[in-house]
Amino acid sequence: MLRLSREEISQVMQEKLVKHGVPGDVAADCANLLVENSIDGIYSHGVNRFPRIISYLDKGYIKAGNVPTLVESFGAFEKWDGNLGMGNTNAKFCMDRAIALAHTYGIGCIALRHTNHWMRGGTYGLQAADAGCIGICWTNTQPNMPAWGAKDRRIGNNPLIFCVPKEGGHVMMDGAMAQFSYGAIESARLAGKQLPVPGGFDTQGNITCDPAEIEKTWRVLPIGYWKGSCISIMLDMMAATLSEGNSVSEVGKLGEDEFSLSQVLIAIDLKRITPNYEAIVEHIIQDIKASERVDENTQILYPNEPCYISRQDNLQNGIPVHESVWESILAL
Amino acid sequence: MLRLSREEISQVMQEKLVKHGVPGDVAADCANLLVENSIDGIYSHGVNRFPRIISYLDKGYIKAGNVPTLVESFGAFEKWDGNLGMGNTNAKFCMDRAIALAHTYGIGCIALRHTNHWMRGGTYGLQAADAGCIGICWTNTQPNMPAWGAKDRRIGNNPLIFCVPKEGGHVMMDGAMAQFSYGAIESARLAGKQLPVPGGFDTQGNITCDPAEIEKTWRVLPIGYWKGSCISIMLDMMAATLSEGNSVSEVGKLGEDEFSLSQVLIAIDLKRITPNYEAIVEHIIQDIKASERVDENTQILYPNEPCYISRQDNLQNGIPVHESVWESILAL
Repeated sequence: MLRLSREEISQVMQEKLVKHGVPGDVAADCANLLVENSIDGIYSHGVNRFPRIISYLDKGYIKAGNVPTLVESFGAFEKWDGNLGMGNTNAKFCMDRAIALAHTYGIGCIALRHTNHWMRGGTYGLQAADAGCIGICWTNTQPNMPAWGAKDRRIGNNPLIFCVPKEGGHVMMDGAMAQFSYGAIESARLAGKQLPVPGGFDTQGNITCDPAEIEKTWRVLPIGYWKGSCISIMLDMMAATLSEGNSVSEVGKLGEDEFSLSQVLIAIDLKRITPNYEAIVEHIIQDIKASERVDENTQILYPNEPCYISRQDNLQNGIPVHESVWESILAL
Repeated sequence: MLRLSREEISQVMQEKLVKHGVPGDVAADCANLLVENSIDGIYSHGVNRFPRIISYLDKGYIKAGNVPTLVESFGAFEKWDGNLGMGNTNAKFCMDRAIALAHTYGIGCIALRHTNHWMRGGTYGLQAADAGCIGICWTNTQPNMPAWGAKDRRIGNNPLIFCVPKEGGHVMMDGAMAQFSYGAIESARLAGKQLPVPGGFDTQGNITCDPAEIEKTWRVLPIGYWKGSCISIMLDMMAATLSEGNSVSEVGKLGEDEFSLSQVLIAIDLKRITPNYEAIVEHIIQDIKASERVDENTQILYPNEPCYISRQDNLQNGIPVHESVWESILAL
């Protein structure tokens, strides 16, 4: 495992993006956002994902030079078209708009259509929190999970993000509506391990922790069974209607690759609304940390705290990148 | 089981509320909202809950004559104090404010503190949808669930509601962050049944479907295990900071009964933003309904569709009320 500096990784990725047609300012933003994800320990949606971005540029799913354009503005709400531009810079731009609206109206809401994979949804929650705002956002995805009571995959594992600002490390839930990602299921199988809790159905129709069985059916479980199925449907429906963009079903019709998604990004100006919010946040965290532990040696972390632990390590010791991933990036 | 008319039930409950000090207009609103929940088949948060409301009035948790007062207004955001008034009429009032703000600003957000149990959270989602808006709302609760990795109960089973308007029956997720309510766990035990999926931990620290075991530990499971734990914490943190009201921890300090809660109610004017939203909603629903079924004879229902099925039955045949519940209400 290499441990590289943020500057080195970002520089290389920027050069590769420019080489594949991305304007310099978009390339810089895109690369820096990806590096931040790896710094936070979200490798799957950080540097590791870079080759797929280049592939999507080459396939024309991502239109290198396109940026979002305003479709409609109505007070604290704006509808934008992503014009199939770069997914993470599109989402960053729209959360910036939501923050600006929140500074004016208390709350701001952006619906974004025809955009691309935003990588780590938490990026935009943290962005809102950096501006003293609560960040709420979600995206739809390809159809990759069966609805509750169904066998074939017609709903998305649509991630939902809630982020509250906190000095020294924002508090954030950033979670997909599937109990486990396909990547996590594959990793468990390759490691010869069972999943820690049930993750899907086996070929007999029973709920199982066995990743190999789940990979045979691809009937992955939503969080909370019927509840996560319902949340997933609602997130898709809100994103598709507010943006007038593609629903999960329509994204599925575009083919095997995932592009032209619909997203919603909301910011609420907490710092202005409740200037002493920090004390409330701290009180809640301290109460939870004071819980009686299941394992005395395992402290209870607040949502997103694991990322700050990774962050400190990676900033001090370099960002971990697999040799094979780095070689494939250098060859792009 | 009695099958009573909506008018009869509402009339009796209004009289009892007035007898216990509630002003006539609040009593009418409160009773009608409760009856609607029973019509929709949500009996636990409908008529069945009425005796507890009277008990809370008598104990002084609910201040019969109090209504919400505005703390602060900032564009599309308002902070209200519920003054410990009636929970469901307070929440209804605040969703009305959110809808009014949404009609002006596209989106409206209300934070409400010092309020009481809103009964069925879905009430306010449906209220937003009736006005052509997307409704998003949540409340905190007593501490009644352990955080992930903890044994003692310090987080809430905070329900989260997403509702999208649809002609003939709105689409809605209305779900608490616990996989099962205490009531559902008790009902399963009384019926001698196992829960259909794991609902908590047994005395050995293992995840179990056995309701009797879960009642020994009260270590109920959040939906999606660590994910629901994180969502619960975020919902509480957002409600407490935006309203400057009690967090779950502080509600717990008030004693065994649940009062003085914090809530957030958001409306987005979908009808104005995307006038043709109905077609998008219908497309998503039809796609999901066309899924390959696990059980050929069990059709796949859209979120909240089961309530519309109950609704039609109950409006035609009368609202089911247990004799014992009705007798206890008549005696109040």
